[in-house]
Amino acid sequence: MSSSKRHKRYEVSRQLGQVALGQSPAELVIKNGTLVNVFTGELQANMDVAVAAGRIAYIGNADHTIGEGTKVIDGKGRYITPGLLDGHMHVESTMLTVTEFAKAAIVSGTTGIYMDPHEIANVFGMEGVRWMHEEGQQLPLKVFTTIPSCVPATFDLEDGGAQLGVSDIEEGLTWPGTAGLGEVMNFPGVVNGDPTMLGEIEATLRAGKTVTGHFPAEDDRMLQAYLATGVSSDHETVTREQALEKVRLGMHLMIREGSAWQDIKEVIKVVTEDKVRTDNMSLITDDVYPQTLVRLGHMNHIVRRAMEEGVDPVTAIQMGTINVARYFGMELDLGSISPGKSADILLIDDLKRMVPSVVIADGEVVAENGRLVVEFPSYQYPEKAYQSVRLARALTPEDFLLRSKSGSAARTEVNVVRVIENSARTAKMTAVLPVEGGIIRPDLEQDVVQLACIERHRGTGQISLGFASGFGLKSGAVASTVAHDSHNLLVMGTNVDDMAFAANELAACGGGMIVVRDGKVLAKVAMPIAGLLADRPVEVVAEEVAALEDAWKELGCFINAPFMTFSLIALPVIPEIRITNRGIADVIEFKLIETEVGPVQ
Amino acid sequence: MSSSKRHKRYEVSRQLGQVALGQSPAELVIKNGTLVNVFTGELQANMDVAVAAGRIAYIGNADHTIGEGTKVIDGKGRYITPGLLDGHMHVESTMLTVTEFAKAAIVSGTTGIYMDPHEIANVFGMEGVRWMHEEGQQLPLKVFTTIPSCVPATFDLEDGGAQLGVSDIEEGLTWPGTAGLGEVMNFPGVVNGDPTMLGEIEATLRAGKTVTGHFPAEDDRMLQAYLATGVSSDHETVTREQALEKVRLGMHLMIREGSAWQDIKEVIKVVTEDKVRTDNMSLITDDVYPQTLVRLGHMNHIVRRAMEEGVDPVTAIQMGTINVARYFGMELDLGSISPGKSADILLIDDLKRMVPSVVIADGEVVAENGRLVVEFPSYQYPEKAYQSVRLARALTPEDFLLRSKSGSAARTEVNVVRVIENSARTAKMTAVLPVEGGIIRPDLEQDVVQLACIERHRGTGQISLGFASGFGLKSGAVASTVAHDSHNLLVMGTNVDDMAFAANELAACGGGMIVVRDGKVLAKVAMPIAGLLADRPVEVVAEEVAALEDAWKELGCFINAPFMTFSLIALPVIPEIRITNRGIADVIEFKLIETEVGPVQ
Repeated sequence: MSSSKRHKRYEVSRQLGQVALGQSPAELVIKNGTLVNVFTGELQANMDVAVAAGRIAYIGNADHTIGEGTKVIDGKGRYITPGLLDGHMHVESTMLTVTEFAKAAIVSGTTGIYMDPHEIANVFGMEGVRWMHEEGQQLPLKVFTTIPSCVPATFDLEDGGAQLGVSDIEEGLTWPGTAGLGEVMNFPGVVNGDPTMLGEIEATLRAGKTVTGHFPAEDDRMLQAYLATGVSSDHETVTREQALEKVRLGMHLMIREGSAWQDIKEVIKVVTEDKVRTDNMSLITDDVYPQTLVRLGHMNHIVRRAMEEGVDPVTAIQMGTINVARYFGMELDLGSISPGKSADILLIDDLKRMVPSVVIADGEVVAENGRLVVEFPSYQYPEKAYQSVRLARALTPEDFLLRSKSGSAARTEVNVVRVIENSARTAKMTAVLPVEGGIIRPDLEQDVVQLACIERHRGTGQISLGFASGFGLKSGAVASTVAHDSHNLLVMGTNVDDMAFAANELAACGGGMIVVRDGKVLAKVAMPIAGLLADRPVEVVAEEVAALEDAWKELGCFINAPFMTFSLIALPVIPEIRITNRGIADVIEFKLIETEVGPVQ
Repeated sequence: MSSSKRHKRYEVSRQLGQVALGQSPAELVIKNGTLVNVFTGELQANMDVAVAAGRIAYIGNADHTIGEGTKVIDGKGRYITPGLLDGHMHVESTMLTVTEFAKAAIVSGTTGIYMDPHEIANVFGMEGVRWMHEEGQQLPLKVFTTIPSCVPATFDLEDGGAQLGVSDIEEGLTWPGTAGLGEVMNFPGVVNGDPTMLGEIEATLRAGKTVTGHFPAEDDRMLQAYLATGVSSDHETVTREQALEKVRLGMHLMIREGSAWQDIKEVIKVVTEDKVRTDNMSLITDDVYPQTLVRLGHMNHIVRRAMEEGVDPVTAIQMGTINVARYFGMELDLGSISPGKSADILLIDDLKRMVPSVVIADGEVVAENGRLVVEFPSYQYPEKAYQSVRLARALTPEDFLLRSKSGSAARTEVNVVRVIENSARTAKMTAVLPVEGGIIRPDLEQDVVQLACIERHRGTGQISLGFASGFGLKSGAVASTVAHDSHNLLVMGTNVDDMAFAANELAACGGGMIVVRDGKVLAKVAMPIAGLLADRPVEVVAEEVAALEDAWKELGCFINAPFMTFSLIALPVIPEIRITNRGIADVIEFKLIETEVGPVQ
């Protein structure tokens, strides 16, 4: 049921009451299940749930609500839980459209998400946010949007596709279905009184909506200054101690378990060992890749992970249902099985496995035994969305040649972006490279390859050149338009011919990720929508990504999930060194620096 | 600090941040207390709390926030708790103005209330609600108003001073400081689709505010139909079983401990024995009399009572702080000690006694050791408020003579309103009374005295006559303009001379409660504002009420709190029989009946 067809509670409460009173029949009744009661923490045996008009009408023995037309589902031997809610995620990380993501999410028991479409905002601004938001509103999955707060991530070091200001936030918050302000990443700005940051927060509080946070630092005073503004949650907590501190200060603790950042094992100790009250905590995914969706599921995986770490099953489910709804002030509509709430319900055979055999959204069975049983509407992104990779002209190998400033030296020292496996941080290092005919060459022996970042939003032709290390590439080239946060066109390679080929091939399909060698495409994940989203089903994209990973390995890359690490290499808000379309950014000094340090005698 | 001077969080968050960072000094610092952490349930030793601009800036070691002008309070050996919040109460029950009530409440540690000015609404409609609301907005006590939902209680059996409809609710909800809809008492109306009830609920949900409930019945299906509409709390629960059922259904359980209705002992078992999650429960007072305020306190008494019944102290405090704030969606501002929240703080030496030695409201010390240390502004009710007792003319003894319809019989049977001690219910009985000269006489041997209800809002001169039993009056008469819910002028007596005298004396002072005998006033509590509120301090009113109770005893009355039982004798929504200005109401059949059944041979 799309959001426009969903009934407000007050539109149907009379009908619900009549069902409860036995005056009119329910549309659907689940009989004899074990209700997971997220209010009391109990497992209640032999319970029925009656549904009408997409909402819950009665709980208990519901025989009196069963009429001729009532669909009855046998719940015997199964648990009845509320549908799962993800309190913070970026759909773009799944590489899927909202529709294709929703299909995968629903099947695994997620019935609602709070998405922060931060990536598309960096490409298309509020227009892009609106597309994804609109797409979300027509789905059986409940899609709430938090408006991205920090677009661009920095003003001084790079050029993205758009900027959002306070008036954009204000406008977005008037759209039905928006839930608040997306993770406020610019915490130094917040703490130091940046007017845009404070203005966005004020606008959100005035709108009565929720300001979600992002606070990876350890400075207690900054944390409290940050909290004082009204930011009320964090999902960047990685230690038990930070978790306890934040919970003590009343911050809603979002414990993250995504594809790359897996914080449950450590952070959940605040529950299992410190044993503090859990009602102000939730479980979230933040970033998941398509292959994780296919292999492990979505929110059901993270709830299961919490149980594996020793959390009581009902507590874990509370952290993925009622606690999330309450954090966003939506507990009257979502997150529990009680009269008047949206009938978003899972039937689960084994609570520890958390694999739903039936998924009900708005009172309708939408998935059974891992398969969708309803059609999802298709959403047509406008033509413009498919034309986000705008280059001044086709690239040539010459574009990637970096000329040494000293004409004659045979060797020169350069700054190198060294990536760290499984980390978003980079290390600033230098290398001495050969200069041939005035051109600085990569050195595979030292694991130093060429890096380029090409402005792709306005077709300015701007290109910056540098060097990277840490991937282990021995041949070929790679390219990506997923390049946080400005999502320019990133290219990395062992030779300029393959670099130009990779860039042009990727641009031709509207963006995405590619691996090439010797003028041939080894693997490609086309993401033609904004250069960020594939318009194919999750199973197809997951296979393409697996092939892409294999192709990286074929080039000699030895690190885990290299496409992810690569996509972060242009993010100039995390230390220590990055490449952007403007050049090499020193993210300790927060300034642009020259690629070439200077010739070596 | 009045509500208009209170700072919104976004107005001062920059200043709070600067204090947290040590860039500017705090205005107030509490040093070295034991923080009652309502988020984690911990008692945290050696904690400081720094305050600026009326809000909390920093928690922990706050030495860096102390400057020259900073006031420092030694918290050593004391607990630091959030100020207490009462989630549902009628200020009118205290017989005090909001200002005089606030003085008593603040001293005992209550820093915020959610009042339902239902009584004044029945006299002066939205105008009266507005007076009390405005009065509340200028006080150091945070006064939030829920707009009365059921005025009048019935349309068919009585005439009150006003009616409220959906548009009144809509308007009231636009006033700053209104929190939602007052207890929706007409639950049969809600369940059966009464358009006014459903309209008021819809208006409240549309305004994003809270619909508070009142569900004294035991019918599970009606309860669920009631909940489906969006009513989300109840404070009429008197058994552990009802409590568990409501909590399981997600209803916010308000456990009541007022002067007359004391539900904690039984209902708290849902916590101490069923051990369910407590985050959706709170403690409330509903109705407290002035003598209770003086002798026992306010919210601190009920929190203490919960502890006495075995509730962990921090859990009990949570049920009077954060849980209340969260229920009303105000947890970003109230109910906890954390950065950015209103600095409403208590210092308490002995957590089990719950007597605050320091009370801080909006960052200002407002009470110390049981005494106010700030001036409260006075509020001038308009002249009209003092002229609520409008009679057609002075009453005469003849007005109270009830003529038998059968001219000649010496005895006749009449319907009698029999009160039940400590109960709001009455029993329908009949008595055979002597008829002298055509006039039906009371019979003190049978404990049957005369009863009258006089319309007092429009001066229509309407008077109804009947008989009461159960008080044990042997002489004199009593009268009251506190006469739920329509608050007409109630008179009861052993003889018509004293009845007329009581009525006229009470009308002359603008209403209240009175006890007379042989043409002399034995005791009187003048309540000249709307006939409901005294304009004197709590200590004075408490003494007057004590004298009033003594005077009732002097007349022979043997029941507990007779003025309270008397004030409910006109409430035609609770079985079985009542007197209203229109006559005797049968509240089983829901119709008016004759006082006289007929002559007896």
